[in-house]
Amino acid sequence: MQFKLQATDKGSKARAGQLSTGHGEIQTPIFMPVGTAGSVKGVHQRELKEDIKAQIILGNTYHLYLRPGLDILKPAGGLHGFNGWTGPILTDSGGYQVYSLADQRKITEEGVKFKSHIDGSNHLFTPENVMDIQRTIGADIIMAFDECPPFPCELDYAKKSMEMTHRWLDRCISHLKTTEPLYGHEQALFPIVQGSVDKELRTISAEYIASRGMDGNAIGGLSVGEPAEFMYEMTDLVCNILPADKPRYLMGVGTPANILECIALGVDMFDCVMPTRNARNGMLFTSEGIINIKNEKWKDDFSPIDATVGGYASTFYSRAYLRHLIMSKEMLGAQIATVHNLTFYLWLVNAAREKIIDGTFASWKDIMVKKVSHRL
Amino acid sequence: MQFKLQATDKGSKARAGQLSTGHGEIQTPIFMPVGTAGSVKGVHQRELKEDIKAQIILGNTYHLYLRPGLDILKPAGGLHGFNGWTGPILTDSGGYQVYSLADQRKITEEGVKFKSHIDGSNHLFTPENVMDIQRTIGADIIMAFDECPPFPCELDYAKKSMEMTHRWLDRCISHLKTTEPLYGHEQALFPIVQGSVDKELRTISAEYIASRGMDGNAIGGLSVGEPAEFMYEMTDLVCNILPADKPRYLMGVGTPANILECIALGVDMFDCVMPTRNARNGMLFTSEGIINIKNEKWKDDFSPIDATVGGYASTFYSRAYLRHLIMSKEMLGAQIATVHNLTFYLWLVNAAREKIIDGTFASWKDIMVKKVSHRL
Repeated sequence: MQFKLQATDKGSKARAGQLSTGHGEIQTPIFMPVGTAGSVKGVHQRELKEDIKAQIILGNTYHLYLRPGLDILKPAGGLHGFNGWTGPILTDSGGYQVYSLADQRKITEEGVKFKSHIDGSNHLFTPENVMDIQRTIGADIIMAFDECPPFPCELDYAKKSMEMTHRWLDRCISHLKTTEPLYGHEQALFPIVQGSVDKELRTISAEYIASRGMDGNAIGGLSVGEPAEFMYEMTDLVCNILPADKPRYLMGVGTPANILECIALGVDMFDCVMPTRNARNGMLFTSEGIINIKNEKWKDDFSPIDATVGGYASTFYSRAYLRHLIMSKEMLGAQIATVHNLTFYLWLVNAAREKIIDGTFASWKDIMVKKVSHRL
Repeated sequence: MQFKLQATDKGSKARAGQLSTGHGEIQTPIFMPVGTAGSVKGVHQRELKEDIKAQIILGNTYHLYLRPGLDILKPAGGLHGFNGWTGPILTDSGGYQVYSLADQRKITEEGVKFKSHIDGSNHLFTPENVMDIQRTIGADIIMAFDECPPFPCELDYAKKSMEMTHRWLDRCISHLKTTEPLYGHEQALFPIVQGSVDKELRTISAEYIASRGMDGNAIGGLSVGEPAEFMYEMTDLVCNILPADKPRYLMGVGTPANILECIALGVDMFDCVMPTRNARNGMLFTSEGIINIKNEKWKDDFSPIDATVGGYASTFYSRAYLRHLIMSKEMLGAQIATVHNLTFYLWLVNAAREKIIDGTFASWKDIMVKKVSHRL
C-alpha cells in the first residue's frame, strides 16, 4: 500500500495525500461511510459510488463474523465479492464492538470472550484469530485487535490496557506474517494508538505504534464521551509523533466540525456513524448548518436540501418532501437523508482537500467550523 | 386522454394499447406501483423510472389529503411538483382507505365521515370534495368516489351500495365539470364498477358505468378476500360490457398469476401493494417462481435473484447477499427486494404485451401462470 503526501497546509498541519490500494486510489483527507453488516444502511452500492462519491467504506469484523459468517464470506470471495462494492474496504478489528457489549464479554490477556448479540452463543476473539477473520473478509485495510477503554477511565487501567493493546499488536503482526491474503489483493494492517486522555500514555503509545513501521496508523479510544478539547489535544499530540509519510486514521470521529479540526491537526482518514444514524432521525448536515427536518418550519420549503453541495438528494428532492417522508416514517425519507448526509461529508473532506492544495485551508476551516455547527 | 388499441390476442381477450397523458405515454397492459403517501416505499423516483421502468405510479387520496395535506401539495404544484416523479400519476378516490378504517368511519348518502388514523381528527369525504382534493393533488387519472363493499356481503347491501356508488359517480361527474385542472395538464376521471360477486349487479353496474362515456373505466370491489374464480368470473363479465376502445383498470389486483389471467380477460391496467409489501418480508417474485429469501437454502446461493428479468437488483446483488440483508433487518434488503419485485412486475406486463402483439399470448400465459405461481 502506497501513500503519497501531495500537499501540506501552511496555516495548519493539514495534509492532502493519495493512498493506493488493490481496489483503487483514495484521495485524502477522506471520510469512510460505515457499512456495519456489509451494507451502508439505506444506500445502494451504486449510490455510494456515483452519487455520494465514497472512495472507501467500512465493514465491522464483529458483525460480519457473526452474520453472514465466514462460511458464507469465503466462498463469496470475501466482502467485496459478497456485497458488490468494488472500491477499497477497511474493516475494524471487532475490538470496539466487543467492548460495547459491556456485561456480555470478558477481557483477558488471551483475548475477549463474548456472547453474540444475535443468539447468545459464546465466542472468543484473539489477536491471532481476528487476523484470520480479516483475511477471510478480505478488506484492503485491516485493523489490529485492541482494547478501547471507556471514558472516564482510571489511569492505572488505561496504562495496563494500553500495554496489553501493544502486546496484542505484536501478536497481530507476528500472526499476519504467517498468513497470506486470500483474494489476490494486498491487505495493510493499521495499528491503533490508545492511552485514554493521558498525555504521557498517548505519547508512549504513539511512539510504540510508530516504531512498528506499518503502512498506516490509527488513533483509537477517542470520541467515546470525552470533551472535544481532550479529543483535539490527544489527536494533536499523537499526530506530532506518528510518521508524516504514513496515513493517519482517527477512528469513530465525528461531527463535521470535529473532522475539520482534526484535519487541521494532521488526520487523513475518518469514519463515523453520525451522518447515517442521524439521517434516519431527520438530522441533516449541510454547508450552511444543521437542519432538524422534523421542525415545522421546513414543511413548505420547496428548496433543495443543500444547493451548494448538490448531488442526487438535493437535485431531485425538496426539504418539504423530505420532511413529509420523515414525518410519515416512509423508508424513502431515511434513504434520501442518508444519501444527502454522506454526500455532504464527502463534499466536506473533498473541499478541505482542495483548500489544502490551494494553501487556503486554515482560514476556510475557521469559517466552515462555525457554519457547519450552526443550527438552521 | 387518448387510448389507442394496438393489438388484440387471437387466443384470448388480451389487448395491447397505448394511453396518452399530459405526462407521457403508457404502454398497456401495465402495472402501476403503489406510492401510498407520495412515495413507492423504499424506492427512489430515479430507480422507478430507470431501473424498474415504471410508466405510471399511484398515489392515495386519503393518505395525501391527511399528510402532507392540501396546503402543502397546492403550493408544491401538486404531487408531481412535490415528489419529483415526472411521469403519469393515478390517484384513487380514498373510498377504499376509508372503507378499510372499519369502526372509524360512517357512510351516508352525503359521503363518508371518518377519523384520521394519524391524529383521530374528524373528516368528511363527499363525491364533490374528493374531486376537489384530486384536482389539488393533480394526478393525470383520478378516480370516482365509490363504496367498496366487503366480501362476503349480503345481496341487498351490495345492491344498495352499488346504487349509491352510481349516484356518487353522477355527483363526481357534475362537480368535476364545474372545476378546472390546476397545473395545466388534463385529468381524466375513471368511474368504478361495483356489485360484489353477483352477476346481475355486476352487469347492471358495468352497463351504467359504460353509459357515462368516460375516458377509461375501472373495476373495483374485487381482490377483497373472494376466491380467485369469482374475481375472474366478475372481471370477464364486466370486460365484456365495458367499451373496447377505453382502457380497463382492475383495482388492487394482484399476484403475477392474477394479472396474467386478467390480461387474458381484457384488463389493461393493474395496481397492487403485493410486490412492494411482500418484498419487505423477503418474498420475491421471479420468472421461475416465488422465492422466500429467508429460507436457509439461499444462504450461499451467489447467483442473481432473477437472471432472466435482470435489472439493477439482479445485476449487482446475489440471492445470498439479499438473504443476509433481510435476515439482518438491513434497510437495503427491503430496498433491493422492492426494486426487484417491481422490476419483475413491469417485466411481466411488458412480456405479456409483446406476446399479445406477436399473437402468442394465450399459450405463453398458460405456461407462465404455472411458473410464476410455483414456489422455488
